[in-house]
Amino acid sequence: MNFLEITYHPIGIIYSPFKDIEGVPIQPSAAQGIKGTIKIKEEFIDGLKDLDGFSHIILVYHFHLSKEYSLSVVPFMDDTLHGVFATRAPKRPNAIGISIVKLIKIENNILHIENIDIVDGTPLLDIKPFVREFDDLKEYRKGWLSERINLLKEIKSDKRFK
Amino acid sequence: MNFLEITYHPIGIIYSPFKDIEGVPIQPSAAQGIKGTIKIKEEFIDGLKDLDGFSHIILVYHFHLSKEYSLSVVPFMDDTLHGVFATRAPKRPNAIGISIVKLIKIENNILHIENIDIVDGTPLLDIKPFVREFDDLKEYRKGWLSERINLLKEIKSDKRFK
Repeated sequence: MNFLEITYHPIGIIYSPFKDIEGVPIQPSAAQGIKGTIKIKEEFIDGLKDLDGFSHIILVYHFHLSKEYSLSVVPFMDDTLHGVFATRAPKRPNAIGISIVKLIKIENNILHIENIDIVDGTPLLDIKPFVREFDDLKEYRKGWLSERINLLKEIKSDKRFK
Repeated sequence: MNFLEITYHPIGIIYSPFKDIEGVPIQPSAAQGIKGTIKIKEEFIDGLKDLDGFSHIILVYHFHLSKEYSLSVVPFMDDTLHGVFATRAPKRPNAIGISIVKLIKIENNILHIENIDIVDGTPLLDIKPFVREFDDLKEYRKGWLSERINLLKEIKSDKRFK
């Protein structure tokens, strides 16, 4: 097995109303209408061409406030332990986060976005267009979340992953 | 703006029938029934608990065959230039790939998956459960792909991003 080290450099920074890890909506669908911006480094502006045709974009970012990881976590959406890879908890072996947000407009190197469930100042690693047809989602099951998904809009993050 | 460097270590390796960058299906929905496996490093096995309840998982991986990047690319799905962030092309400033694949079963540290559009030997960075309800996808638009999406199952990757 390959044990190489992989190094990335942020392409920009995500700005949001959430100054702290506590009180953040759990996922974009629980963050409807919450606005933020992304400042892309000037050197990458040409990479944004035609992105504005997409209504939704996938943000890939680094959970910069997560310093360690646990393999077993009690996620915000439950009160029992699950393997970290069966959750979206931020304290992961590689602290990578993904959110699909709504793209409102692009002005030069500033992206205006909505439905943001991300802490202010988060380093952005990549942007991809969201394309529904790329995924084959037949026979969908959602595991331990089946009984809990109705709580999504009630629950906010707390201090547990600080 | 924050210019820090972010280092990750693979949690495992993805194995697939695609030994080369050429001829790979463009996305999971064009790779239906194509089987692969993931070998997770032994030290992370506890993180897989309860993952088997989910039918679909999000793989976050490193495009290890992409050595450089371009900000303007002609993606497999088109014949004109687009900003790289408006495409899923592998030659990105941070060569991170995302695929939602079907999880068939887990045996110890081996995940059996289906709908795989990933090159054999790809280093895996993270696994997340796919949860449809986490994303708010109203008013969906797919930009330059609107006119091209019907080609998804006909087109395979070629040498352009080698």
